Amino acid sequence: MNSKPETRNQKLEDLGEFGLIEHLKAKLKSNDPTVAVSIGDDAAALKLTEDKLTLITTDMLIEGVHFSRANFTPFQIGWKAMAVNVSDIAAMGGKPQWAVISLGLSSSLSSDYIDHLYDGMKALGEKAGGIVLVGGDTTSCRDLIISIALLGSVEPELLTLRSGARAGDYLAITGTVGDSALGLELLGRSSSRLPLSLRNSCEELIKKHLQPLPRLEEAGRIVKSKLATAMIDVSDGLAGEAKRIAEASGVGIRISQDKVPVSYSLLQICEHLGLDPLKFALEGGEDYEFLFTFPPDRQEEVEVGLESSVIGQVVPESEGIKLIDRSGKVKDMPGQGYDHFKK
Amino acid sequence: MNSKPETRNQKLEDLGEFGLIEHLKAKLKSNDPTVAVSIGDDAAALKLTEDKLTLITTDMLIEGVHFSRANFTPFQIGWKAMAVNVSDIAAMGGKPQWAVISLGLSSSLSSDYIDHLYDGMKALGEKAGGIVLVGGDTTSCRDLIISIALLGSVEPELLTLRSGARAGDYLAITGTVGDSALGLELLGRSSSRLPLSLRNSCEELIKKHLQPLPRLEEAGRIVKSKLATAMIDVSDGLAGEAKRIAEASGVGIRISQDKVPVSYSLLQICEHLGLDPLKFALEGGEDYEFLFTFPPDRQEEVEVGLESSVIGQVVPESEGIKLIDRSGKVKDMPGQGYDHFKK
Repeated sequence: MNSKPETRNQKLEDLGEFGLIEHLKAKLKSNDPTVAVSIGDDAAALKLTEDKLTLITTDMLIEGVHFSRANFTPFQIGWKAMAVNVSDIAAMGGKPQWAVISLGLSSSLSSDYIDHLYDGMKALGEKAGGIVLVGGDTTSCRDLIISIALLGSVEPELLTLRSGARAGDYLAITGTVGDSALGLELLGRSSSRLPLSLRNSCEELIKKHLQPLPRLEEAGRIVKSKLATAMIDVSDGLAGEAKRIAEASGVGIRISQDKVPVSYSLLQICEHLGLDPLKFALEGGEDYEFLFTFPPDRQEEVEVGLESSVIGQVVPESEGIKLIDRSGKVKDMPGQGYDHFKK
Repeated sequence: MNSKPETRNQKLEDLGEFGLIEHLKAKLKSNDPTVAVSIGDDAAALKLTEDKLTLITTDMLIEGVHFSRANFTPFQIGWKAMAVNVSDIAAMGGKPQWAVISLGLSSSLSSDYIDHLYDGMKALGEKAGGIVLVGGDTTSCRDLIISIALLGSVEPELLTLRSGARAGDYLAITGTVGDSALGLELLGRSSSRLPLSLRNSCEELIKKHLQPLPRLEEAGRIVKSKLATAMIDVSDGLAGEAKRIAEASGVGIRISQDKVPVSYSLLQICEHLGLDPLKFALEGGEDYEFLFTFPPDRQEEVEVGLESSVIGQVVPESEGIKLIDRSGKVKDMPGQGYDHFKK
């Protein structure tokens, strides 16, 4: 048992998801020569061949936790289950290639429903360059469960970890953040109460939650140009993912509030409903954008060539993880990302 | 959509697990040159390297479906979740090597409980020659869910499929069958009602259910000596798995009732409780023994060198799947294996 005394026999609701992951990282540490990257990054990397690393990741979506069948079509459930895994492989610099799927299914579902689940997985797989579904397991259960393990590959020199950020680097993110979390919020409200002029924005945000498309083209460009010193996919919120890069790299991070990219739709709806856009942008999860650090002399490439925004800087670890607000004041970063277990 | 018309839009409780698998096999058929074996065998086989095939399988255990926390220790849950996956890789002739784990956990569980889950996985991994746990995903949910994807490898010439059985081959099985299913039955009864002389047998059968150890040494010998023309692991009952070999190979199968190997403990307890041993042996699942076919001129190797029993013959497809009873009468095979979805 390599766990620190303080993580011993705590309840998960006190230990939290991130505490559990740290605990497991210590417990499962391995020096196996076939393992290049083990638990603790977006995917594991294995040395199976001479020229490429084999990546493997797994993510599970559970009805009532990650989705409700009232809001999601089966196509969207399949799509999203594949998207969250593809996002992990892309964040390592890799190309997703093969998947196996464990399904928990209520016996009252129809074969058409299952077909649409698979159609969603296959459609996202096509968007990701073609993923072959090679097998799986089905079992009956009350709630719908879909657990995918996705294999991919990456050339060793293109492998991009969370741990490569260095003080002096800049921090950037693809696309916009907060849309998916606001979309989820809107699913819980009646859109008919919104003025007609906001309905399209509302639909757009909801779609980002129901059927997210990881920005794979941008990730591909970042990787191929060897731009990123560290990269992670934004599944648990910008603030939480920034913290993960900081911890893995042993650095601090400063994010400028003003520079965090949000969509016009998010701004409009937040204003109308009296919600705080920054909270959604920093703490909202499931955007499947890519957060990365890069050397400052390559700023132009990021600002001109990519659909990305420079949002901050990497600083020494001692300076912590901070937000620079509109007045230039340095504040503690609000939100540590969504925690599945915390009370 | 390649599915036959009759499988369209049926409820799973009518289509059944095996119907669903057939449906998905047709739907997901792929000619991708990197895939040597796709959906429909114990594991998929991928061509990642020149000299070996990479195997991948996944199996999920769900609380309330596959186990209850009242009966299983967390160590046993972890052990069994790994065992069912290891059994799949071994049935393909392969060596299991790396695993990723998706866990659904109630936040009321403790870190000690999770440690014991992982200890069980690691302990079975050690028995299987050393499996490295390289990553995973954790999420909160009501019931405990453990989904493992296991990677392994096999030399192409040792790959053993379900589809290689030929009329004239003999059929054999390692160990004994029915113990796990009777163990499950006994878990539902109070063992204190059994005479003291049967308590040890009772414990032994229950242990086979709670903490099954796939007969990996035997599987390894069968594979290395290139004895088997087809092989499958017995997770869903002897009758059901025999049917799978028959269907995949396009053959018929005859099993002699007299030759089906059962343990003395099973016979004793069945006699005492008035239960039918044959029903447990043919229809009981989760034994994780290996069922295989082999050429008749190698019978001595099976009977002398292996902990296996020759139980029947492979016959032409037109002769169906039959049981030869004690009087020599040919009967339809009772039991088609456990179906997760059927009413």
